[in-house]
Amino acid sequence: MLFDLDGTLIDSVYQHVLGWHEALLDFGVDLPVWRIHRRIGMSGGLFVAALARETTLEIDESAAVVLGAGHAAAFERLRDSIRPLPGAERLLGVLTAMGVPWAIATSGNRRSAEPALDLLGVPDAVLVTRDEVRHAKPDPDLFLAAAARLGADPGQCLVVGDSVWDLLAARRAGSLGIGLLSGGYGQEELERAGAYRVYEDPADLLDHLDEVGLRPAR
Amino acid sequence: MLFDLDGTLIDSVYQHVLGWHEALLDFGVDLPVWRIHRRIGMSGGLFVAALARETTLEIDESAAVVLGAGHAAAFERLRDSIRPLPGAERLLGVLTAMGVPWAIATSGNRRSAEPALDLLGVPDAVLVTRDEVRHAKPDPDLFLAAAARLGADPGQCLVVGDSVWDLLAARRAGSLGIGLLSGGYGQEELERAGAYRVYEDPADLLDHLDEVGLRPAR
Repeated sequence: MLFDLDGTLIDSVYQHVLGWHEALLDFGVDLPVWRIHRRIGMSGGLFVAALARETTLEIDESAAVVLGAGHAAAFERLRDSIRPLPGAERLLGVLTAMGVPWAIATSGNRRSAEPALDLLGVPDAVLVTRDEVRHAKPDPDLFLAAAARLGADPGQCLVVGDSVWDLLAARRAGSLGIGLLSGGYGQEELERAGAYRVYEDPADLLDHLDEVGLRPAR
Repeated sequence: MLFDLDGTLIDSVYQHVLGWHEALLDFGVDLPVWRIHRRIGMSGGLFVAALARETTLEIDESAAVVLGAGHAAAFERLRDSIRPLPGAERLLGVLTAMGVPWAIATSGNRRSAEPALDLLGVPDAVLVTRDEVRHAKPDPDLFLAAAARLGADPGQCLVVGDSVWDLLAARRAGSLGIGLLSGGYGQEELERAGAYRVYEDPADLLDHLDEVGLRPAR
């Protein structure tokens, strides 16, 4: 089972969204917050490319670095309010106890992902981050790398994510995608992006593990 | 034409959401952010009742006052980042020029709504707030009072809002509801709540005024 991180295991999407909004305003770009929300979870490079297209702004590499630093600073001020999503720790514990291999694959970088592992109580989890692959979501690279780290066939993996980009990447990896509402997307958006099932949050997924075909390893 | 305010004319939903989240955490309630997002725009009383139901928490009147003050303080720290939504000022100007009567009806109180009117450049707009009616959305009282202030038949009014609660209140008022995606709900959520049409934001609605049947008054 391959997990996205923000909005899937930890409740950090809205803080990231307002962090990007503040960084963009400081940069002179007034992009409505909901549009940023719909882009969260995709690769930073694609995010900036989409942004340039939607705002007809020229954003070169050094501007992207300034934006990234602005987001990191604004996000830091909101970090105290971040909690694990309901059932996240319990779900990971049950999978471990069942002998189901799992990993976390995030479009974020390692420095920002590691505090989240501590928050989830799994500092030694298998973690694949943006800096380890060529392309982030909706490209499949992150999930393919995570499957390889587990020695698993991607076609036998379940990908769990809260965003359209997770589900598109899951399809390109040949995995079944499971959507969670806990990142703030609507159920139909996730279904239309190819979710096999949609649950509210990790606790709700845990209550329905039988629906996704998970059984204890023998 | 009757407008909701937050998420419909000004880009303030996500700041309200994180403001409530922070107030609730300070109060000892760890409610995931997306669930708060889905409650924004409904009456504060119903919000607290739903909260009590979902968390099995006892929230009496004095606790509700503490929560409200906590939200106001946290929101204040995020207020600098609030902008009008794209096309909002232009849409209101076009309606005025066409001779189409319009008003704003919000589940917020007057003290928090008035700065938004300044931001929109319409300090003298007809405004109905939470403190003027018995029940807020999804009850129809706010939109009924706004129609009365315009001397209009609610059945001839168009209600524009970003949340499910606006659209439910519109139906109970006998008005046609128009959904906007700019508050961060998904399109299907708004359609399933009864939206006659869904647009991205005020600019997109302005581009499609003919679809909703608006013509210059003669």
